[in-house]
Amino acid sequence: MIGQSGIAVRTITRAAASSVAELAKYGVATIHEAMGRVGLMAPYMRPIYPGAKLCGTAVTIFAHPGDNWMLHVAAEMLRPGDVAVLALSSDNADGFFGDLLATSFRARGGLGLVIDAACRDVAELREMGFPVWSKAVCAKGTVKATLGSVNTPIVCAGALVRPGDAIVADDDGVVVVPKARCAEVAEAAGKREIKEAATRKRLAAGELGLDVYGMREALARAGLKYVEDEASFAREFKK
Amino acid sequence: MIGQSGIAVRTITRAAASSVAELAKYGVATIHEAMGRVGLMAPYMRPIYPGAKLCGTAVTIFAHPGDNWMLHVAAEMLRPGDVAVLALSSDNADGFFGDLLATSFRARGGLGLVIDAACRDVAELREMGFPVWSKAVCAKGTVKATLGSVNTPIVCAGALVRPGDAIVADDDGVVVVPKARCAEVAEAAGKREIKEAATRKRLAAGELGLDVYGMREALARAGLKYVEDEASFAREFKK
Amino acid sequence: MIGQSGIAVRTITRAAASSVAELAKYGVATIHEAMGRVGLMAPYMRPIYPGAKLCGTAVTIFAHPGDNWMLHVAAEMLRPGDVAVLALSSDNADGFFGDLLATSFRARGGLGLVIDAACRDVAELREMGFPVWSKAVCAKGTVKATLGSVNTPIVCAGALVRPGDAIVADDDGVVVVPKARCAEVAEAAGKREIKEAATRKRLAAGELGLDVYGMREALARAGLKYVEDEASFAREFKK
Amino acid sequence: MIGQSGIAVRTITRAAASSVAELAKYGVATIHEAMGRVGLMAPYMRPIYPGAKLCGTAVTIFAHPGDNWMLHVAAEMLRPGDVAVLALSSDNADGFFGDLLATSFRARGGLGLVIDAACRDVAELREMGFPVWSKAVCAKGTVKATLGSVNTPIVCAGALVRPGDAIVADDDGVVVVPKARCAEVAEAAGKREIKEAATRKRLAAGELGLDVYGMREALARAGLKYVEDEASFAREFKK
Amino acid sequence: MIGQSGIAVRTITRAAASSVAELAKYGVATIHEAMGRVGLMAPYMRPIYPGAKLCGTAVTIFAHPGDNWMLHVAAEMLRPGDVAVLALSSDNADGFFGDLLATSFRARGGLGLVIDAACRDVAELREMGFPVWSKAVCAKGTVKATLGSVNTPIVCAGALVRPGDAIVADDDGVVVVPKARCAEVAEAAGKREIKEAATRKRLAAGELGLDVYGMREALARAGLKYVEDEASFAREFKK
Amino acid sequence: MIGQSGIAVRTITRAAASSVAELAKYGVATIHEAMGRVGLMAPYMRPIYPGAKLCGTAVTIFAHPGDNWMLHVAAEMLRPGDVAVLALSSDNADGFFGDLLATSFRARGGLGLVIDAACRDVAELREMGFPVWSKAVCAKGTVKATLGSVNTPIVCAGALVRPGDAIVADDDGVVVVPKARCAEVAEAAGKREIKEAATRKRLAAGELGLDVYGMREALARAGLKYVEDEASFAREFKK
Repeated sequence: MIGQSGIAVRTITRAAASSVAELAKYGVATIHEAMGRVGLMAPYMRPIYPGAKLCGTAVTIFAHPGDNWMLHVAAEMLRPGDVAVLALSSDNADGFFGDLLATSFRARGGLGLVIDAACRDVAELREMGFPVWSKAVCAKGTVKATLGSVNTPIVCAGALVRPGDAIVADDDGVVVVPKARCAEVAEAAGKREIKEAATRKRLAAGELGLDVYGMREALARAGLKYVEDEASFAREFKK
Repeated sequence: MIGQSGIAVRTITRAAASSVAELAKYGVATIHEAMGRVGLMAPYMRPIYPGAKLCGTAVTIFAHPGDNWMLHVAAEMLRPGDVAVLALSSDNADGFFGDLLATSFRARGGLGLVIDAACRDVAELREMGFPVWSKAVCAKGTVKATLGSVNTPIVCAGALVRPGDAIVADDDGVVVVPKARCAEVAEAAGKREIKEAATRKRLAAGELGLDVYGMREALARAGLKYVEDEASFAREFKK
Repeated sequence: MIGQSGIAVRTITRAAASSVAELAKYGVATIHEAMGRVGLMAPYMRPIYPGAKLCGTAVTIFAHPGDNWMLHVAAEMLRPGDVAVLALSSDNADGFFGDLLATSFRARGGLGLVIDAACRDVAELREMGFPVWSKAVCAKGTVKATLGSVNTPIVCAGALVRPGDAIVADDDGVVVVPKARCAEVAEAAGKREIKEAATRKRLAAGELGLDVYGMREALARAGLKYVEDEASFAREFKK
Repeated sequence: MIGQSGIAVRTITRAAASSVAELAKYGVATIHEAMGRVGLMAPYMRPIYPGAKLCGTAVTIFAHPGDNWMLHVAAEMLRPGDVAVLALSSDNADGFFGDLLATSFRARGGLGLVIDAACRDVAELREMGFPVWSKAVCAKGTVKATLGSVNTPIVCAGALVRPGDAIVADDDGVVVVPKARCAEVAEAAGKREIKEAATRKRLAAGELGLDVYGMREALARAGLKYVEDEASFAREFKK
Repeated sequence: MIGQSGIAVRTITRAAASSVAELAKYGVATIHEAMGRVGLMAPYMRPIYPGAKLCGTAVTIFAHPGDNWMLHVAAEMLRPGDVAVLALSSDNADGFFGDLLATSFRARGGLGLVIDAACRDVAELREMGFPVWSKAVCAKGTVKATLGSVNTPIVCAGALVRPGDAIVADDDGVVVVPKARCAEVAEAAGKREIKEAATRKRLAAGELGLDVYGMREALARAGLKYVEDEASFAREFKK
Repeated sequence: MIGQSGIAVRTITRAAASSVAELAKYGVATIHEAMGRVGLMAPYMRPIYPGAKLCGTAVTIFAHPGDNWMLHVAAEMLRPGDVAVLALSSDNADGFFGDLLATSFRARGGLGLVIDAACRDVAELREMGFPVWSKAVCAKGTVKATLGSVNTPIVCAGALVRPGDAIVADDDGVVVVPKARCAEVAEAAGKREIKEAATRKRLAAGELGLDVYGMREALARAGLKYVEDEASFAREFKK
């Protein structure tokens, strides 16, 4: 149940390591396209420094505004290659996470954090190279008083995340790949990249997308009307 | 007509290249002041990397939420020195533009993009040095199904842009200079810079703006009252 | 009175220089914790470039939307080690501050600016190394027509600031330390850092926060239930 | 020029009274569709009470944040049947307009106000039946210190408004009809209403839009796949 | 799969009618508490008129920004007692729904709409008594060009909704009750109401929540310190 | 100290009842003007039903996101004529307050609530006629786990509120009158209303504000230029 509190699941099935390694080769935009344009978190989730990138398996956390207790419970569940993903029961931008937790997560093999709240100590995190995607940066600390859950399904920034799903994040945002689809998505992403490389070459040479993608006929069918100049436009469509 | 769909104008009158070259010497803040404090887009339009800067002539695009078809139509209209400027018919932050379109735009001589929506592939765009000002970054792709227009007047981020107007953009935002005013504005901007350089020298030497700009009398006339210390303030204006 | 207009206080009592120097050793998150989790401005106050940091004493400014006149009045009040802090009577994101005022402020010994509005010339400010925390960046200029106040108490981004209070700002945000509390807070911050260093070492070695902070018992008392795997979870909490 | 300050135009050409009377018969959504889906202001423009409705000719006002001086200049320009439309040079939600100005506007024949800022005295305005569309309600007053303009083209809430254009506003928002297009748009709106009435009857009788609009074939062509039940869905698209 | 496009499921299992009838007796806040404080949509989902209330079973719709085609496909799936629930693939506030679709939905037995986008014709919908919860009101129309899905799981305003789940909505917002939990939740809600009625009586008689809920000891344990007056407070906690 | 946690002050000095009774005669906009345009809370604070109005003395509450424990502590401090005013340590829109607390508050003589968070049970509160100003409406409940404070100074929606200050709220928003200034402000408000009544009469008779307030000369001095018609405007200010 989404938003169940008081539960921590110790053992989860993770996306296959080989598939995650494949996914790691591609950017978020490519993977999202390869999945059929689904799986993205909302665009307010931004990396705390440019160039941040990660690909790993989700340990999910459900917590309450102003309370980061569950991040400590989650630390114990982290395995090398995991990404902590935290959703809140309601909007709040407190600083749930800082360099101490990052130190702990890294020691456990955690690769980074995706948090629908804020983090702090961003200068230290940048220096550590510990990537975080968050909706804000805020120095405000939290309490440890109310139970949430660890490793139950969550909705984070509009995306459903199940424990063990693959998480890919870069400058373009965060995408969730359901564990059962990782291999298939990685393969589709690879094909897409090959196709895009060919397209890029043609576009770089000055060919138009109109021709490369064969759009001219569809545009005509849709009724696009070319007029020669602004004077003609003004004549036909008097403002 | 603003928001007319289904039209693409092939030939537009652009701001004179010499005036655009003049404008390129100045920053957005200076040009906006030189124009009489008008012409700015809303401040939510931000460069995708710090230090981005451009000055060129507008090829305007009107499109619909979630649909980037018209960017392909616009590519054909780009001439060296142009800047693509896209407005939407309603709020949406999908990733309308990425490195493939940037490759195509650059091959056509396009200098950059100003888009009242989101772009993606920002790591690649940063590496290419292809500057974009947008209201968001988002990996989400778009469809190609509904006609908008190219090279008709648009309202982008609150500013009216006519095809061929000069667009200047930097870390401070985006300003539109109507093509007929470019020479005059560049000249005014130049004069302003000269004046500011002199002022900067005086301020750097420790003179106060109060004296440099001769504000003391106006402040007194407006009724500004100086009190010596906090105790006097507390006595006179008991909280 | 908060929001009193038409007053400028010439002499203010500043936090003791020695305490401010002590505070300067710590980050915003540490100081906020050391104060008992109070004193922070809202997280929308962001530095204009990463890595910005300052610690100084507040010269407070109260101004009105679209009008930066009082910044010039404030320049005269700045002493070496001061930070200008500006609050508005209502929401507005005009560019109240640019490189000329920064030049003037620096010449007077001003360390930086905290402004619940926007600034401009950010490329120049970055180059000067003049740090600003603001809610936006905007090229739009302002008028000089309406009186506000200088060195009266203000509410800036949700925090009460009295003239002479210490202001500490970094990548995590802005915190206000009341002048009477600076020594005590610096001391508490120092103790906290020592304790955190020890904790960091343990966490880096792989110990869990659950054990370092002794949370296991409290979690059990609160009712946290560990289940072994997803299948058990699904059985007990059928979705 | 959009955003020109210091100008007040006394005499403007207004949309023909007969066309405005025709437009007044239709709602905003209908007129917007009849125009080809253009002309709407942004949806943050809301009536201050439910059921507000107006249709009149625009007297345009350009003003600056926190300064309502131009509303007084505009009062003199109002003729019976006019609607005041105010745009700001930058974001601000002060209370520019209250019951005194409403009394004055009404005495001049003004029908209402559309303002990209806030108004106040809303209880009194509701009682007077003086309709206002605004982006906020706020008690905060304004100064009268800086010139804007009256009866020059403006961009209000994203829509271009020229003096004399028709403004239609209701619970659904605000639409601008360029004065030259009023007759044509009113006619198209009338036709649309007739068509909608027929459609409404069929839909009320239980016919489906799929059939009324003949969408089944296009859906099939686009690839819509019907599956019989959730089990089949789960089989085909394993999560 | 969340966000799957191109699928419409004809037959879904709905929450039992008897349980839905039970749930209809309670408000959203009560049900959300009875569920263990989960299941709410984000608070930006507001009714288009005060006093709107509904309880029914979800027909889910996934659509794309600016495109309401799937609402027509959904109409065919509606059975008496159903509520249409629409999620978008990305943020957009176009007017996806108006009085024609409401007429059609009602003819099919639909009770109302929950839409993470905007609706229009709100005056007509209010008159019809057709309740809608949306994130905005907007006259802007949509196209019918891109496939989404009907009756697949969606995330709407942060809440996971499966086809056939119970939807309860009133002035306080929207809550989703998974179909398997409806009976249990209705029962818990009933018990809660009985308990609250007793509490209400005691509170109305002047008893304090501190005593009714027995909070005094816990507050003391947490360290709450009562001081007699402001002077004592000021002495102990010098500002 | 703003944001001090763990303190509840039992006895506070309230604004004199006679002055509060005087203030109750005036609207928020009038009082704010009478105070010299200060004291307003941010305009996002809205009444939960139109026509809500109150005037009373503040019992202040400082609380943390998602935790309404202190509202129960505050109930004991309420005296007839009081208004509870709640500020949070950080942004959160949970439903801190509902009809049970309203029943308790009313039984203690409380007049209403001003809360920089959300409330719920708004249909019941409307029926009870218990007015609340909040930043949102949300069904989501809260925990009772973390101490805040009661009757210490707070910053609520940008305004400093001290225990016992007068709070006036209506459809236009919320204004705080420091207890020491209530008599003076009520008197000034009364004078303002008399003056406004006279002005209203003149404006209703068709006189212009330009003449009533004698603005013509100042406008001329500021440089306002009247042009006869749009053609003249276009000639002088070619777009």
